[in-house]
Amino acid sequence: MYEIDLDRPKEACGIFAVYNHPEAAKLTYFGLYALQHRGQESAGIVVSDGKEVREHKAMGLVPDIFDEQILETLKGSIALGHVRYSTTGSSLLVNAQPFRVLYAGKSVSIGHNGNLVNAREIRRELESEGSIFQTTMDSEVVLHLVAKTMREGLEKSIIKTMGKIRGAYSMVIMAEDTLIAVRDPHGFRPLCLGRLDSGYVLSSETCAFDLVGARYMRDIEPGEILIIDKAGMKSIRPEKRFPLAHCIFELIYFARPDSNVFNQNVYIFRKEQGRLLAEEFPRDVDLLMPFPDSGNYAALGYAQASGIPLEMGVIRNHYVGRTFIQPSQSMRDFGIRVKLNPVRELLRDKRVLIIEDSIIRGTTARTRIRGLREIGAREVHMLVSCPPHRFPCHYGIDFSTRGELIAATKSIEEIRKFIGLHSLDYLHIDNLVRATTVPRDELCLACFDGEYPVPIDESGGKFCLEE
Amino acid sequence: MYEIDLDRPKEACGIFAVYNHPEAAKLTYFGLYALQHRGQESAGIVVSDGKEVREHKAMGLVPDIFDEQILETLKGSIALGHVRYSTTGSSLLVNAQPFRVLYAGKSVSIGHNGNLVNAREIRRELESEGSIFQTTMDSEVVLHLVAKTMREGLEKSIIKTMGKIRGAYSMVIMAEDTLIAVRDPHGFRPLCLGRLDSGYVLSSETCAFDLVGARYMRDIEPGEILIIDKAGMKSIRPEKRFPLAHCIFELIYFARPDSNVFNQNVYIFRKEQGRLLAEEFPRDVDLLMPFPDSGNYAALGYAQASGIPLEMGVIRNHYVGRTFIQPSQSMRDFGIRVKLNPVRELLRDKRVLIIEDSIIRGTTARTRIRGLREIGAREVHMLVSCPPHRFPCHYGIDFSTRGELIAATKSIEEIRKFIGLHSLDYLHIDNLVRATTVPRDELCLACFDGEYPVPIDESGGKFCLEE
Amino acid sequence: MYEIDLDRPKEACGIFAVYNHPEAAKLTYFGLYALQHRGQESAGIVVSDGKEVREHKAMGLVPDIFDEQILETLKGSIALGHVRYSTTGSSLLVNAQPFRVLYAGKSVSIGHNGNLVNAREIRRELESEGSIFQTTMDSEVVLHLVAKTMREGLEKSIIKTMGKIRGAYSMVIMAEDTLIAVRDPHGFRPLCLGRLDSGYVLSSETCAFDLVGARYMRDIEPGEILIIDKAGMKSIRPEKRFPLAHCIFELIYFARPDSNVFNQNVYIFRKEQGRLLAEEFPRDVDLLMPFPDSGNYAALGYAQASGIPLEMGVIRNHYVGRTFIQPSQSMRDFGIRVKLNPVRELLRDKRVLIIEDSIIRGTTARTRIRGLREIGAREVHMLVSCPPHRFPCHYGIDFSTRGELIAATKSIEEIRKFIGLHSLDYLHIDNLVRATTVPRDELCLACFDGEYPVPIDESGGKFCLEE
Amino acid sequence: MYEIDLDRPKEACGIFAVYNHPEAAKLTYFGLYALQHRGQESAGIVVSDGKEVREHKAMGLVPDIFDEQILETLKGSIALGHVRYSTTGSSLLVNAQPFRVLYAGKSVSIGHNGNLVNAREIRRELESEGSIFQTTMDSEVVLHLVAKTMREGLEKSIIKTMGKIRGAYSMVIMAEDTLIAVRDPHGFRPLCLGRLDSGYVLSSETCAFDLVGARYMRDIEPGEILIIDKAGMKSIRPEKRFPLAHCIFELIYFARPDSNVFNQNVYIFRKEQGRLLAEEFPRDVDLLMPFPDSGNYAALGYAQASGIPLEMGVIRNHYVGRTFIQPSQSMRDFGIRVKLNPVRELLRDKRVLIIEDSIIRGTTARTRIRGLREIGAREVHMLVSCPPHRFPCHYGIDFSTRGELIAATKSIEEIRKFIGLHSLDYLHIDNLVRATTVPRDELCLACFDGEYPVPIDESGGKFCLEE
Repeated sequence: MYEIDLDRPKEACGIFAVYNHPEAAKLTYFGLYALQHRGQESAGIVVSDGKEVREHKAMGLVPDIFDEQILETLKGSIALGHVRYSTTGSSLLVNAQPFRVLYAGKSVSIGHNGNLVNAREIRRELESEGSIFQTTMDSEVVLHLVAKTMREGLEKSIIKTMGKIRGAYSMVIMAEDTLIAVRDPHGFRPLCLGRLDSGYVLSSETCAFDLVGARYMRDIEPGEILIIDKAGMKSIRPEKRFPLAHCIFELIYFARPDSNVFNQNVYIFRKEQGRLLAEEFPRDVDLLMPFPDSGNYAALGYAQASGIPLEMGVIRNHYVGRTFIQPSQSMRDFGIRVKLNPVRELLRDKRVLIIEDSIIRGTTARTRIRGLREIGAREVHMLVSCPPHRFPCHYGIDFSTRGELIAATKSIEEIRKFIGLHSLDYLHIDNLVRATTVPRDELCLACFDGEYPVPIDESGGKFCLEE
Repeated sequence: MYEIDLDRPKEACGIFAVYNHPEAAKLTYFGLYALQHRGQESAGIVVSDGKEVREHKAMGLVPDIFDEQILETLKGSIALGHVRYSTTGSSLLVNAQPFRVLYAGKSVSIGHNGNLVNAREIRRELESEGSIFQTTMDSEVVLHLVAKTMREGLEKSIIKTMGKIRGAYSMVIMAEDTLIAVRDPHGFRPLCLGRLDSGYVLSSETCAFDLVGARYMRDIEPGEILIIDKAGMKSIRPEKRFPLAHCIFELIYFARPDSNVFNQNVYIFRKEQGRLLAEEFPRDVDLLMPFPDSGNYAALGYAQASGIPLEMGVIRNHYVGRTFIQPSQSMRDFGIRVKLNPVRELLRDKRVLIIEDSIIRGTTARTRIRGLREIGAREVHMLVSCPPHRFPCHYGIDFSTRGELIAATKSIEEIRKFIGLHSLDYLHIDNLVRATTVPRDELCLACFDGEYPVPIDESGGKFCLEE
Repeated sequence: MYEIDLDRPKEACGIFAVYNHPEAAKLTYFGLYALQHRGQESAGIVVSDGKEVREHKAMGLVPDIFDEQILETLKGSIALGHVRYSTTGSSLLVNAQPFRVLYAGKSVSIGHNGNLVNAREIRRELESEGSIFQTTMDSEVVLHLVAKTMREGLEKSIIKTMGKIRGAYSMVIMAEDTLIAVRDPHGFRPLCLGRLDSGYVLSSETCAFDLVGARYMRDIEPGEILIIDKAGMKSIRPEKRFPLAHCIFELIYFARPDSNVFNQNVYIFRKEQGRLLAEEFPRDVDLLMPFPDSGNYAALGYAQASGIPLEMGVIRNHYVGRTFIQPSQSMRDFGIRVKLNPVRELLRDKRVLIIEDSIIRGTTARTRIRGLREIGAREVHMLVSCPPHRFPCHYGIDFSTRGELIAATKSIEEIRKFIGLHSLDYLHIDNLVRATTVPRDELCLACFDGEYPVPIDESGGKFCLEE
Repeated sequence: MYEIDLDRPKEACGIFAVYNHPEAAKLTYFGLYALQHRGQESAGIVVSDGKEVREHKAMGLVPDIFDEQILETLKGSIALGHVRYSTTGSSLLVNAQPFRVLYAGKSVSIGHNGNLVNAREIRRELESEGSIFQTTMDSEVVLHLVAKTMREGLEKSIIKTMGKIRGAYSMVIMAEDTLIAVRDPHGFRPLCLGRLDSGYVLSSETCAFDLVGARYMRDIEPGEILIIDKAGMKSIRPEKRFPLAHCIFELIYFARPDSNVFNQNVYIFRKEQGRLLAEEFPRDVDLLMPFPDSGNYAALGYAQASGIPLEMGVIRNHYVGRTFIQPSQSMRDFGIRVKLNPVRELLRDKRVLIIEDSIIRGTTARTRIRGLREIGAREVHMLVSCPPHRFPCHYGIDFSTRGELIAATKSIEEIRKFIGLHSLDYLHIDNLVRATTVPRDELCLACFDGEYPVPIDESGGKFCLEE
């Protein structure tokens, strides 16, 4: 959907890069297109033909930003692309990525997914030495660090930079004839390597490999620096191992169901959530349904495990666009039905079970449930396929633009009343972990249990560079 | 979906109108938005404040054509809106509707859904008397006929006009202070009347009433002329009754599942198709699935009747836009996966049953089935929830831009081979009729059985005014 | 200048047409571009390749409306183009010309310059017979009349039409393989015929011939119908001669100085106005100047005849655009200087004589003169190179959007005071006539003397079809 | 004119700034609009309300870039604006000015007019210390230098920066609550200070003061640093005096005739050039004329001194826009007449003298002269109101995009033949200097005599940072 639902979490970014392919820009376009769900605010592609570096960035969606004519100007066999959703609230073109600078007359670009927890601190240091900045992004800080030690060579420079920065980061750096993929030592965010003809591709998710016909090779390892250049591929791995902390929310929410993330298929993971939900919370209802598309796969899992009929009881309007006009005050209830219209004939007098993947602020759910009751549903129950979200994320997810995590301040019973449900339950955290193939101590579950794997900046709270 | 799938049938139009509401234009905007699936080529709204008539029309989708500023200029309490998909192949702004003319210094506008079978004949007559035309649309012919007898009053004039025109037509005519709804005597296309506050609304489908919060009152009756003006509502019904011929394809395909059409809920009709399909053709497979969204509801019906697990085995990219760039020749297989990506981990080594709502040319199905086999599906079966389409439609549906109805020239076995399936079957026409609440002799089934309720123009074949 | 100066007269239109040239549309584009000064509101080109007729029209200036891509779609060797400034106040795309209709499946287009005085009357007649209209333009009335008698052939039909319409009209009608030029029997507005390679061109002014490299042949004669088709060129001249009435304002104001109009060069005519002004009104001043570009040529004539130094004492900003932002209330005096800035060092303490080509409302002149006095000009005198405008025009010139002809209600002395001048005089009408090569009884001088050559519609006053 | 004439010199920039006015952005808009002739490639405005800094920049002309809505978002009482024509050939938005960076969380912006001759050298030094760049502009180098020493305070930092940079520069730097105007010690480019209500304005030329109603106070002195903040105005002047080098081409060509530059009125200077030209080169011709608008004022001066009649013998099309379509190959001579059409009736059989302000490549002149001869001018003579341009400029003027100064390689006689003239002469350099009020040793005449006041970068030739 194009419009922004304030009641859904927002991701930082998607990255896609190509090394050694004659249609690098076009492949990157398709790759970004497959990753569009990871960022709808701006997109950009930087391309190098070994001599010249060209770029195109703009606010908006990938298919609106690029056309044949623009792609044709982006000549070269190395490309780096990025889609972005701001984690800091400032939606400006200057913050669109890849971020590109000139160093010694050469172009260095970066595409970044994640959030550094000590960026502010480093920035202060750099400024005290006379550095000036264009943006408020972490990525610019990273490039300043790289430039400071560049005389020792790009490789050493990146090792030193990784020694300074802390937090969640999967990033790709493009110099004129080199592509470097870097993943933080905890492995918060995904980043995959693939093969396409005689070239290489890098992507935040494997679904982009499917689209361009690339073959998945492996994940970039936590802490790894992968350098691809004319000499081939070279990997630098950290001496010290850090505890892993794969973001569970990538599996629950961000990744497309047709992607594999942390070596696990997302569709099957989500169905398993539903199966475990059926095991933990059997319900006596006439039918069950998701709101498209948030709980689709858990709903399938629950239906297959329980035998309760699955219905698609609310119909989505496929033409919802970004610029949709707001109903007038006197039409204020339209909002509910613009995107989703419940099928009255199906739901009237029925006991309905809704399967949801998450509740952040609870306001959208409340409106939708009211809509179901207005058309005559007898009972409305809800099951959420993960535990309550009680803690903010410092590693790149913006759970709520207003900091209003309903579960941070309300009990489940209070949430049930707020939304207007007959019953409400959340999957137990143990069952959530059971649904994954990842060991519990290699997951970041901080949004559920408050245990942050990497301590945050002294400035505390939500990290924000905005003046 | 924004892009045009050449392998799906195309509808002529959707109509929405409002009488006596201070926000007539905005309501109409929302109404058209809910009817967008009936026409994506152009849209327009004409509004009257009793004195002045204003309009805005453009090529494209409703949310792209109108914005707050434009809607604010469309002042008045009577409005007529229209979304159009051309049945004649000419996509020009001049053909966008509502079509508006000046007669005796007054504005008369028309929104039309359907296809006249004797428009060419009437046009020739009019031209021989010196009439000049702006467009090639049926609607202009209708307004010329109305103007010819206007001196006897609008009411008589419309009765006379209906005596001349033949074919499928649901239309709304707006004079400066009057709204007139007309439906052809056979009732081919739907048209409903609703109530909103102290005003009236007219819509092609009831889902638009849900969105604007209107209450459905009744269908405009076949042959009825409904006049709404300051004096209230007045109905003129034909003396003679014609045989009814409700278009079955409205139920099978065009209408939104949350609409009621011909007094029947579309969602429930489609599930019933699936249930009867399960009864007629039981299959021994591991899972069943639709391609979103063409066979969704029949698939639910089949799954519930058979107990076979339903899966959403192909993932749709929600960001597919109209201007999507074509993959290069070397990337030609991308096309399959740009919109829909199958979940490899789910489908590999499985026996898969696809439920489809129709096969027109068969080319899209062929590409998709190939995609399933490439990722390792063991067997792929297909069931279609209606009989084979063997005959063209003369009443407003453009089954194929190239006239290539695969079932018109190929046997079911040949189609199965063409698409590359393990098995293929179609719902029997008797079962299709059983799924409806409409008696068989009140349905138009011409696309399946070739029995056309209204004989077509002497010029034969597809009606077309294009030079 | 792009922006609209309310204090300048507005012309109806410019016409340009091409017969038999492979680049007809592109030539027409250039022709309209040269005629842009005759209409800045909308422009359009209709082209025929003998089979198909294509068109492009839009609001705005010629170079903004057309680009290479659009011109390439306008294939054909016959073209008709039009630039328009509305005389009726309604600025809608539907009123852009050429106006095109379908008659008997064929395209007939018209480009019209002038104003009919009995259009309303004819329109009423047509409506009483059931005719419907798209626009409020005279041109549509003309095409209805043509269609009514079309069965007798295009030629007869046009003769009959000319028998019905009265007023000022130069027009070109384009059927699929024919171009017909028509000029009213009084010859109010210009229309010229030229030769280009093996084809013909028609233009409102000869300056367009210069631009496209065409050779001027002759003016279309008053009352002439010139038909150009495959058979060659054929001329139908009226039996009866009407008194000629060439619009003096074409020479004074509308035509470009590099055009010849009514067989007279405009530049030389205007210099002659200045020379006669010097003869009639010698002035003892330090310098003389025009406001660019309204009195340029008369100023040259005056300077050469008198020996008084000519200066370009106000500097024009060449970048004034249509969308110029208005100064705030507190900056209200900006308006004067945005377009024209006087050169303080040149004008301070000087006795200045301004040469103007006309004063309509007097408000712009007043503001400008105030500007001159503010920077220290000692005396400011003005001479106008024609008599005072006392009467409205019924033949296509909109002297003022508010009907405020200052000379209609004020004496010259009152105007002098209103504008704030030391002295003010107007060229005597006899001198104005002396400056032309046209006999006095072949000129329309109605705006100066109120003698209208063609009586106007019974409805009286300013002709207006707007509801 | 909007389109770019390759045969005219190009200026770097215009600057306009406002301190302490509630409508700072709107005033700056008007100021830039008056300075549009100094740069048509891009424009930008940065505004500070003391707390937040906002900006808007884009490619194109001022009235196209800004509208009411955008200006309303630019809130604040301090503003800095800039119009730019690239001297380096790269026309990218990233190079649009003002250039803005963040330093220690605060915004610092710069608007720059001129060209540094040692920017490349400084850039290399900065890069060796790890600095990264966004652009190839001098302005970014300046801001890096400022940031390096910022800890010592903005004032000291700017003094140190001016100690490092060499060349031509007039610039304005805007910190959040301070405006700093700086002019290089030689005074190459103009920069003026004015007063408006209780605020201050800075402008490249005085014509912008006229438009906004500001009062001219004085020029920023060569080498001066003027700091305007809450404490008032403070001036830092260099201890050492450098030889002055005012660019003569500002008077000859760049500045608007209604501006005063280097304390001299431009209009009067140019008329004086014409008067001296008449003295130096009397000609026996029938008339003299400029090509609008390049030699207008010198032509006036010549005409008044000689008594030869001045004519405006070529008519300009006021609607020439940026996107003008090129004539086809077969119409290749159109180019001459699209902008300027000679008046045949005036010039035929005449001996014509053209007054020009400069000849750079000579190609445009050649085409125009051919046009005059084609319409029958008997003799065409030309006088140029300055000496031949023989040397490139290193201080910000791009005389020719291809480095083709015709006078660098051809004698006057060869140029005469190339252009196709009966005679050609250039004003003597002594007469040029006589036309000014500036002593000869305070002028930069390098483009005529090759004596460069500031030695250029070791890299030699045209300064260029482009990779």
